[in-house]
Amino acid sequence: MESFFNPKSVAIIGASAVPGKLGHEITKNFVKYGFKGEVYPVNLKWDKILGLKVWRSVLDIPNTVDLAVIATPAKSVPKIMEECARKKVKAVIIISGGFRETGHKGAVLEEQIVRVVKKSGIRVIGPNCVGIYDAITKVDTIFDPPSRLQRPSAGPISIIAQSAAVGAGLLEWLDQEEIGVSKFISYGNACDVNEADLLEYLGDDESTKVIILQIEGFSDGRKLIEVAKRVTLKKPVVGLKTGRTRTGGRVARSHTAVLAGRDEICDAAFKQSGIIRAHTCEEALDFAKALAYQPLPKGDKVLIFGNSGGTAVIASDFCEDLGIPLAALKKESINRIKEIFPPHTIIQNPMDLTGDVTSENLGRALEYSVSDAGVDCVVLLVQFQTPLLSEEVVDIIGEVSQRFPDKPFVFGGVGGDYTLKLARMLEKKYRIPAYKCPERAVKALWALIWRSKYLKGREAQI
Amino acid sequence: MESFFNPKSVAIIGASAVPGKLGHEITKNFVKYGFKGEVYPVNLKWDKILGLKVWRSVLDIPNTVDLAVIATPAKSVPKIMEECARKKVKAVIIISGGFRETGHKGAVLEEQIVRVVKKSGIRVIGPNCVGIYDAITKVDTIFDPPSRLQRPSAGPISIIAQSAAVGAGLLEWLDQEEIGVSKFISYGNACDVNEADLLEYLGDDESTKVIILQIEGFSDGRKLIEVAKRVTLKKPVVGLKTGRTRTGGRVARSHTAVLAGRDEICDAAFKQSGIIRAHTCEEALDFAKALAYQPLPKGDKVLIFGNSGGTAVIASDFCEDLGIPLAALKKESINRIKEIFPPHTIIQNPMDLTGDVTSENLGRALEYSVSDAGVDCVVLLVQFQTPLLSEEVVDIIGEVSQRFPDKPFVFGGVGGDYTLKLARMLEKKYRIPAYKCPERAVKALWALIWRSKYLKGREAQI
Repeated sequence: MESFFNPKSVAIIGASAVPGKLGHEITKNFVKYGFKGEVYPVNLKWDKILGLKVWRSVLDIPNTVDLAVIATPAKSVPKIMEECARKKVKAVIIISGGFRETGHKGAVLEEQIVRVVKKSGIRVIGPNCVGIYDAITKVDTIFDPPSRLQRPSAGPISIIAQSAAVGAGLLEWLDQEEIGVSKFISYGNACDVNEADLLEYLGDDESTKVIILQIEGFSDGRKLIEVAKRVTLKKPVVGLKTGRTRTGGRVARSHTAVLAGRDEICDAAFKQSGIIRAHTCEEALDFAKALAYQPLPKGDKVLIFGNSGGTAVIASDFCEDLGIPLAALKKESINRIKEIFPPHTIIQNPMDLTGDVTSENLGRALEYSVSDAGVDCVVLLVQFQTPLLSEEVVDIIGEVSQRFPDKPFVFGGVGGDYTLKLARMLEKKYRIPAYKCPERAVKALWALIWRSKYLKGREAQI
Repeated sequence: MESFFNPKSVAIIGASAVPGKLGHEITKNFVKYGFKGEVYPVNLKWDKILGLKVWRSVLDIPNTVDLAVIATPAKSVPKIMEECARKKVKAVIIISGGFRETGHKGAVLEEQIVRVVKKSGIRVIGPNCVGIYDAITKVDTIFDPPSRLQRPSAGPISIIAQSAAVGAGLLEWLDQEEIGVSKFISYGNACDVNEADLLEYLGDDESTKVIILQIEGFSDGRKLIEVAKRVTLKKPVVGLKTGRTRTGGRVARSHTAVLAGRDEICDAAFKQSGIIRAHTCEEALDFAKALAYQPLPKGDKVLIFGNSGGTAVIASDFCEDLGIPLAALKKESINRIKEIFPPHTIIQNPMDLTGDVTSENLGRALEYSVSDAGVDCVVLLVQFQTPLLSEEVVDIIGEVSQRFPDKPFVFGGVGGDYTLKLARMLEKKYRIPAYKCPERAVKALWALIWRSKYLKGREAQI
């Protein structure tokens, strides 16, 4: 598997000199953006592509080839696979579509590929995928150019995606939110390497702290559960199962030729194996960000803290929906906080310090309330817009959070550019994951609590 | 009510010369950002504020006062209200908090205000609110400065919000998404003017095309239903009821002193009166945008159209969740489209033209499929990142959509900066509401379908 992500040499079969062609864009990725290994374009027509000598066949390449990327019409792929096997290529990514997902003829072609795999031991990702983006080694087989599909720098989250578009969308979000990515893999039809293999590999990958797994169906459900059970003990896995419904499942079948399976079974499999289930693309990213940035809480008692009653009401609704109880603050904590404020200020949980709190008082109240032993985790709902809060409130909040390294914080203030600027500061500097609204913050916290409970349950079993 | 939104003269009671103080920021809004009427600051301490003469009492002002804005401590408000009544002020916005929401003492003060209202016929918004932002007349009582809480320009959506923070957050989103706002009202404790009064007023307001109504509880549920039933025949109302749960309801009680009520009753009330229920802040805005920009569909049969199978799977899941059936395309439509593409391309609904479709072919396929009489509405899932699509695809899609003025389109492609740029073009130029992911696009379409069905049901009753 290592040859997929850190090859010393790559052959691009179906390389092209014509900008816009998949084989051109992929070659360019390897030539222009810092890939350190050898690059061998293979094509029958051209002599040079982007300054590199072009080879007529992978067999003509004078050195060993660790990874071959195939972007040629489906019907040519079985023969090329035979050549790759003879060349003793270790790993192949087949970008081309036109296989099992298109019907009987395509399925026959895919069978021929599988036969080569079984005979030779060569490993294959795809077909019908965009392959890999590795932010560290710069293996990048995504044919959409970086000007249109932005590549994140190195970060803690890896993505395994059956759908290229969904996976690539999540990848771009990781860049937009400045989170970064470790490894991205779009694996398409999974004729050989499947989601379980990839999960196993990323489970041992040191640069991957959290895994997002987007699947349309199970290649081998039993194996996935078995692998996931091991991996989730080491690091969090967020699962986004699409094709949940009858309609969605039928569509998935003609997309990546999978059997989507009954959703209750998927749900049970995820629960049993510790995969945290997300129901939307946004949720998958929201969960992964919280899991990458914050510790797991020891318990599930939440403090809702801020200067807005309205967002506290929303957070309370979602806490109840998700079974997250509000922490009961001790009398001493409440009295300590009461001393800071005028007598009519109501000190309770949720704590709404109202729109005329200062940064300093907000910080003190936060410190005193989080230090209450009954509080396990915090939903921060600070509306930064109020005139008496200064920008320093970000550091004040951040420093309080650092004094409680075993209590996770999530942020969910609602606002515009100024709010987003301060929220991003909070996230970048103090790793408090920031969300656009309280609903999403609470759900992200739920993911931390869910994992905490899961791990305790597993420990109890051992 | 007109005096709230288009006053010829405004007294700001509790005006201040100190930047950051509420009374200063509010005065500044009226002085600096284009309000056309007279402004009279009232304060005991200062002689000039922002170059304006300061009056000791509203009674000293030599001219009539249409609107008074009160931002003084709670205990001073009843006396000021008496003065406003003697001055025959038409409308008052009480920004100050410290009333019914804080307990018995505050409730007594609020009762005193209500007594003045009943005696004098003066209308009051608040207390415990941020009041009004009118993008046309520039009445702006929001004390958070524009550098921190951005004000949208004039647009089709109005917001009625019980929570200042939630309402202001939605307001800022309307600016960020370049949608604009007509009127924004945060009404807090609703001691006089309540959500039903505001709904009635906006129902007749020509510049308001869609209303977002965020409430924590019902001031007068029966009246709200009765008013909403009339208003929703004229324009769409999106309802965001917070304090849905027992916990949330309890928190709402100490926030705006409302009785949140049982959620099943709210649900039934919304359904009966044609209020489209949103469950999150983001949903409220997503729904309102679709309702502001697109026509209602004649039926509920959807075409899912794009160049990505993975996002089509997600859209299909959400269509099934929400009871939206996929349109069955006629044989002739399918055959017309098949002629454009190579024989192995599968033409069906959802239509996934795959990553190697050109802009021109995508446009033709869209035209042919939407013209099918069985299609009522369209979820567009175009991944713009693919190398063969040009930026012109935005105009190609937009122009097709304009040829079907009775079939609504929503967009839900997933991606980064390039995708957002093109999606924004589609939205700005062609009014196709664009969402960050297919899930949100489908839900927004559901709001259009829901309203279409509701209106048909009401027609049938008449």
